[in-house]
Amino acid sequence: MSEARKTDLYELTMAMSYVREGMTEPATFSLFVRDLPPERGFLVAAGLEPALDYLSGFRIGPEDLDSFGKALGRPARDLVPLLGTAFKGEVRAVPEGTVVFANEPLLEVTAPLPVAQLVETYLLNLVNHQTAVASKAARCVLAAEARPVMDFSMRRTHGLAAGYEAARTGAVVGFAGTSNVDAAASLGLPAIGTMAHSYVEAFSSEEGAFRAFARAHPDHPVTFLVDTYDTDAGVRTAARVLKSHGTAAGSAVRLDSGNLGEQAVRARRILDSAGLTDVLIVASGGLDEYAVDRLVRAGAPIDVYAVGTRMGVSADAPYLDSAYKLVAYGGRPVMKLSSAKTTAPGAKQIFRSHGCSDVIALRSEQPGSGERPLMRPVMRNGRRVSEAPPLREARERFTADLAQLPPEARRITGPTAPRPAFSDRLKALSDQVRHRIESEILAPQRV
Amino acid sequence: MSEARKTDLYELTMAMSYVREGMTEPATFSLFVRDLPPERGFLVAAGLEPALDYLSGFRIGPEDLDSFGKALGRPARDLVPLLGTAFKGEVRAVPEGTVVFANEPLLEVTAPLPVAQLVETYLLNLVNHQTAVASKAARCVLAAEARPVMDFSMRRTHGLAAGYEAARTGAVVGFAGTSNVDAAASLGLPAIGTMAHSYVEAFSSEEGAFRAFARAHPDHPVTFLVDTYDTDAGVRTAARVLKSHGTAAGSAVRLDSGNLGEQAVRARRILDSAGLTDVLIVASGGLDEYAVDRLVRAGAPIDVYAVGTRMGVSADAPYLDSAYKLVAYGGRPVMKLSSAKTTAPGAKQIFRSHGCSDVIALRSEQPGSGERPLMRPVMRNGRRVSEAPPLREARERFTADLAQLPPEARRITGPTAPRPAFSDRLKALSDQVRHRIESEILAPQRV
Repeated sequence: MSEARKTDLYELTMAMSYVREGMTEPATFSLFVRDLPPERGFLVAAGLEPALDYLSGFRIGPEDLDSFGKALGRPARDLVPLLGTAFKGEVRAVPEGTVVFANEPLLEVTAPLPVAQLVETYLLNLVNHQTAVASKAARCVLAAEARPVMDFSMRRTHGLAAGYEAARTGAVVGFAGTSNVDAAASLGLPAIGTMAHSYVEAFSSEEGAFRAFARAHPDHPVTFLVDTYDTDAGVRTAARVLKSHGTAAGSAVRLDSGNLGEQAVRARRILDSAGLTDVLIVASGGLDEYAVDRLVRAGAPIDVYAVGTRMGVSADAPYLDSAYKLVAYGGRPVMKLSSAKTTAPGAKQIFRSHGCSDVIALRSEQPGSGERPLMRPVMRNGRRVSEAPPLREARERFTADLAQLPPEARRITGPTAPRPAFSDRLKALSDQVRHRIESEILAPQRV
Repeated sequence: MSEARKTDLYELTMAMSYVREGMTEPATFSLFVRDLPPERGFLVAAGLEPALDYLSGFRIGPEDLDSFGKALGRPARDLVPLLGTAFKGEVRAVPEGTVVFANEPLLEVTAPLPVAQLVETYLLNLVNHQTAVASKAARCVLAAEARPVMDFSMRRTHGLAAGYEAARTGAVVGFAGTSNVDAAASLGLPAIGTMAHSYVEAFSSEEGAFRAFARAHPDHPVTFLVDTYDTDAGVRTAARVLKSHGTAAGSAVRLDSGNLGEQAVRARRILDSAGLTDVLIVASGGLDEYAVDRLVRAGAPIDVYAVGTRMGVSADAPYLDSAYKLVAYGGRPVMKLSSAKTTAPGAKQIFRSHGCSDVIALRSEQPGSGERPLMRPVMRNGRRVSEAPPLREARERFTADLAQLPPEARRITGPTAPRPAFSDRLKALSDQVRHRIESEILAPQRV
């Protein structure tokens, strides 16, 4: 089965009409986020590399026609004009890891109208989801103020594939590791894993459980989960076992419930009195950037934060107000006027100055002094311009952008996102297209 | 690549220890939701059938050992004791479509401890996600009060697979169709698809766009999106084109922005004056059960509701407080005592009386008069007890349960979920296990 059938039905009904009408001239679609969620001061672009993989492989095969026919309630032969359609277009995009804001194109696709339309659903899905999660994960990293953050989200993401993407986008924004075996092995990320409460319960004593765990993992750092029964007692037991096991660098106790800040203070005291000053304290259990921020500000002696569910589903903003809008067709810039959702016409570029001060301009414009363009060609004639870059590059890009972000955009609570300006030429084109629509389309309707 | 590597690292570190210690006696794990999200008066069980598919195919192969070794930073040979591990256990579960509440096991797994542990991450992920989305979708159906509800969520779910699951769980709770071509074709669901604003913009006039669409879909119902420029004018244009195209049953106009209730009143008036009383009005655009409820209560003449993003990601409750807890090992009931997350010991059963009045009991208990058990054996020796049932069965089950749900649980805003009682024997066992833990584990720690 090809990926081509992973689409909304309306992409097909439109493509069929375009082909029938001979409307196959190049169209440019722009994928952007209209408004940031209230609790986001910035977004982190993600999903581009998987999107390019999809486009590289996009091709409508004979087996797709059967699915299309079934969904449309029409014989597969009606779909024959679409057979063999592949993506041979151009993509310009901001690379993964770039900090972006409202209305800034994350990517622009230029291809014959039917195929540029057919790929909408898949592209929106990938970029919307992964950018939402990367942006949430970035805030966790910010809140932890240089302490390692780990991804524990796999058990409650929206499907297993979403768990993989959470681990991947976590790596883009600088997470120190993931619990996800598949993602760790595939992407070469550090994996972290401790034990569950069930493990402790399966033994007839907590100490028995810890000793067995240490036996199974000789010469490796171990992390003991200390809150199954009584947390202070659990820490004392862990200290005893760690002293005999030896504390390979990275050995730790994990707190997963209750008042994590207070428990961490007591745990640190117990570990230090046992001479285990190098044993780390890992905190988990319902953490997100808000909770991490409170713990960090309260001075909790927590060395590693494991964020799970709320990061992995971007709980306070599980989707973005993203759109994939036609901005030009057959050389003619177009826009949408309907209430509150007006879009700007034409293929675009983003120029960034120091401090993430951005101008959204037309693609044909040149950067001013001190400005750098954010969008770059990533696909031509349906082929990647260069190989998929290593995740490290996206991480470095994110780190550099983050350092330039104004303080109000970095705030965990009540952030304010910079609003990119529109260039004079883009504003002039918008006015011109609006005027054309009013005189050529709206005025005749009113007659 | 086998699915076995889709797991959290800690499942592996624990399994390695269990195997090393010879702790391979049968363990029972219970998967349940501790507390319902505030805006949920009930949950709809979903994810069981995909979970059984996973368990049927679970087997650790040689290629998995490499991934495991990489993630653990250990040579693959250390993992050899896990090679060939397959799921040969037992599963009891409430079937998909059942209405459930807090603390009620959605499924219980009994298998040798290492394998029952290894499957935790995957099972939690599937059941948590799909139950969350099914429960949200069910509320959309409730709010629409018998009007058809359609799934338009695919573009903003968390990955493409999550879009498929949203369409599937939508079908469980009675959605009339989906925009998802893949899901519609695979699951035999009605597909719905209209046109995008970009389609209208690609033509030099709205009427030209509608006429071209009609030409491409002769003898089929068509839906015209009427809000690209000016909604009233768009409806008048649609009416004109529909009169000449002919209105196959199901032809419609779609409103996607602005004040949907007011626009629907005006659109109905325009269509009716044109003699198009059988042309439907479809509403979409940021809808969820709250918005649908307001429109229905206001008497908006909307015939079909298309719910998208907010349903597909369960925006106000994108995850559940789910847990997979060890409740028995080697014949011994166990429980967790840590603060605020105490679990009840032993394998369980749920007895339901009329009105969704439930008692959570021990598995060994018999139903009282008028009670029926909700959990049933679904897998024995790692094989399904019977073939996967058609989705229709889950839908019928949901419809029957919904009819019995008390009004306060059905409320869209501020619902109150029924709280299942615990049976006397379950309470007695909890006390007994708690006492044993206090005397055998906690007291010695305090010495």
